[in-house]
Amino acid sequence: MPKKKKSLIQPRTLKGFPDLLPGQAMQREQMLDTLRRVFRSYGFAPIDTPVLEYTEILLAKGGEETDKQMYRFEDHGGRDVALRFDLTVPFARFAAQHIGALGTPFKRYHIGPVWRGENTQHGRYREFYQCDFDTIGTDANTADIETALVVHDILDALGFKRFTIHVNNRMVLTGLLDQLGLGDKSAQVLRALDKLQKIGAEKVATEMHQQAGATSEQTDAILHAVQAEGNNDEILDQLQQQVGTHELAGQGLENLRQLSRNFVAAGVPEGRLVLDPSIARGLDYYTGTVYETLLDELPGIGSICSGGRYDDLAGFYTKQHLPGVGASLGLYRLIDAMEDLELLQKHNNTPAPVFIVYFVEEELGRYISLARDLRQAGIDTELYPEPRGIGKQLKYADRKGFRIALIGGPDELEKGVWQAKDLERGSSEEIATAELPDELKRMLQ
Amino acid sequence: MPKKKKSLIQPRTLKGFPDLLPGQAMQREQMLDTLRRVFRSYGFAPIDTPVLEYTEILLAKGGEETDKQMYRFEDHGGRDVALRFDLTVPFARFAAQHIGALGTPFKRYHIGPVWRGENTQHGRYREFYQCDFDTIGTDANTADIETALVVHDILDALGFKRFTIHVNNRMVLTGLLDQLGLGDKSAQVLRALDKLQKIGAEKVATEMHQQAGATSEQTDAILHAVQAEGNNDEILDQLQQQVGTHELAGQGLENLRQLSRNFVAAGVPEGRLVLDPSIARGLDYYTGTVYETLLDELPGIGSICSGGRYDDLAGFYTKQHLPGVGASLGLYRLIDAMEDLELLQKHNNTPAPVFIVYFVEEELGRYISLARDLRQAGIDTELYPEPRGIGKQLKYADRKGFRIALIGGPDELEKGVWQAKDLERGSSEEIATAELPDELKRMLQ
Repeated sequence: MPKKKKSLIQPRTLKGFPDLLPGQAMQREQMLDTLRRVFRSYGFAPIDTPVLEYTEILLAKGGEETDKQMYRFEDHGGRDVALRFDLTVPFARFAAQHIGALGTPFKRYHIGPVWRGENTQHGRYREFYQCDFDTIGTDANTADIETALVVHDILDALGFKRFTIHVNNRMVLTGLLDQLGLGDKSAQVLRALDKLQKIGAEKVATEMHQQAGATSEQTDAILHAVQAEGNNDEILDQLQQQVGTHELAGQGLENLRQLSRNFVAAGVPEGRLVLDPSIARGLDYYTGTVYETLLDELPGIGSICSGGRYDDLAGFYTKQHLPGVGASLGLYRLIDAMEDLELLQKHNNTPAPVFIVYFVEEELGRYISLARDLRQAGIDTELYPEPRGIGKQLKYADRKGFRIALIGGPDELEKGVWQAKDLERGSSEEIATAELPDELKRMLQ
Repeated sequence: MPKKKKSLIQPRTLKGFPDLLPGQAMQREQMLDTLRRVFRSYGFAPIDTPVLEYTEILLAKGGEETDKQMYRFEDHGGRDVALRFDLTVPFARFAAQHIGALGTPFKRYHIGPVWRGENTQHGRYREFYQCDFDTIGTDANTADIETALVVHDILDALGFKRFTIHVNNRMVLTGLLDQLGLGDKSAQVLRALDKLQKIGAEKVATEMHQQAGATSEQTDAILHAVQAEGNNDEILDQLQQQVGTHELAGQGLENLRQLSRNFVAAGVPEGRLVLDPSIARGLDYYTGTVYETLLDELPGIGSICSGGRYDDLAGFYTKQHLPGVGASLGLYRLIDAMEDLELLQKHNNTPAPVFIVYFVEEELGRYISLARDLRQAGIDTELYPEPRGIGKQLKYADRKGFRIALIGGPDELEKGVWQAKDLERGSSEEIATAELPDELKRMLQ
């Protein structure tokens, strides 16, 4: 850049728009790599959409809250545009536009930033990452089962040991209310039911009575059903008794039964999938299976992965009926949880484990060659750029979090050996150049 | 989503803002994975910065063109904000803000989208990806050498066979002009020289004469120097003769000599690094080594990776002197080139190679278990969600680009075998369930 101006501009970011320092960026990479690996193993393909879209497209669904939070402006061509506030709306638009060429069923994942001008209290960001995956263009319960398996495999691959995927089926709830003669009040009833965890059964019953005119017999029946206890088979049996021969509810129960059985058949440890008849989620959107995922060790952070089956993804943009099922991962919540449970790699600031001290000024070629040989052996290696005091270089290496420092002074270079200093333990050993790749791999294990 | 509105909204994207379909998104992932691997192998760490910044920060350097092309607006809090138009300015701001905590030398890479409201003719996008890497906080030539090695290793890892990294050092040019008594006219002379490839030596000489008042002796000397021919050592010798004992030029030549020798010492094939005294690049910004990278097989697309050494990265935001060296990769140009040279994986639409036909409806558990076993053996596998006609399922598999379809009908399931159909060759073989992982790996090789 050209010469300095007289007055400096204070370097700063917008509130809610964080920089990612190397340690954080490496942690995010580690997590995203794992997510991508699991998605791909099931045949989910990545897509991307632009961050900027026509406001009309993003607001098709409406919702005042969304509108107020959107980063919306007029572009150079006078177009009304906005930054996407989630990945669901762009996916609906994407599907309406491309599904003819892509064909169905279509399985995609999408990881990327979204923007909401929210209050930044409580550690909320205005720019943050979302991760969605969906199977669209099929009604088959196979996709619902697979969705739960993907959630399971992701948490397993990230290193979580104790987590529970809670599932329910909206058809069961709908059928139950229908059965009880509350079919036309289901919105009010479910809105009350959604608060069960927060306010308890008694207050939920009061609200159902006040808002939906439910009798105490009706509220008893509902609360009894959604609080069914036991293992998954026992819960299914209790619900079956409640809904009797109701067809829709019966289909919902059958889907849940198939889901539960296939988790067993697939060898997933018992207890990781729990039928939870109280989960309603998204009153308008979901129509079948619904999911929430809780970490047993960190119940306070809430669901880290939620989703469900919907009837029609892209009805605002196309007449093509696109049913589907999917889920969304809260990436920053996941990272926080992984940090709490020490599942992330040590928070250091170098992606390379090995550090070479630049000791003898005129021997630069030797150091460069060694670094190159180690890289070709698959050992990531950084060379300090200046022949400064060895103490200063080792301090740098230590601060950055390198595991091993290689030191080759005049004596070592003459003998064809290197001092390999373990920066965590402080110990050193002398290793011949030819043996370095194998020995370093051993030390790094 | 709720019920359809009466009138549909036409699904569409803004001009210059492309969707990435699965095939394209997978190609981008493949390329970015390779870049990340090489950067990390040298100890470059990732960082990220927000896409939205204070306009004042982004415009510190000024430049009318930039200003006009920026996506700039007022946010909810009345702040003047804009989408970043490159990764260099955010890095300068980032460095000024965090370098105290991070320490020097600091090596980072940054891959992400940037936005410019450019004319979309000639296939230009308004949202596109950039990739920058830099070493800051050191004047050492080691970092300049490493920068060229990183460029080399990236192109090599991406599969390019014939490419040339052209290097020069601005100190040589500056010293030469100083020596010739044109030191105070260097901006005009270099601006003319920058056109050498385009308009030829004769017109460059004319322009030097007209704009800088250079005599024919001076223009001859300059053009003779910058058109030096031979191998790197011969070019260095010729330049040495021209610049005589000029100190600054001598330092530039010494740095180039060290760079060239270390490429040889590092075992890089001859001819991949070429000293090219005619390269000037960025009149204001670069002060030392400069780089351009050409693909020998696709000379028309221009430099796919350029950069250089600069004296002061963040002078607008901090008094801390931050010299550095780095380069920038044109990602979309690289992808186009890789596509032309067939270096990208086959353009298919599934990340998984293996497809399982859902044949017998009531045997879903068998198919789900098999898919799971294969995934655990490292073989990415998709299961079709519905028990439709086998022809329809195979057509889907073929269209998506799966390599192998596994078919287990009633007979096969009873015998404990699977028909493995090679979708490229059309051949089939029967494989026992227990042998599937090994046999599929063999078939996929």
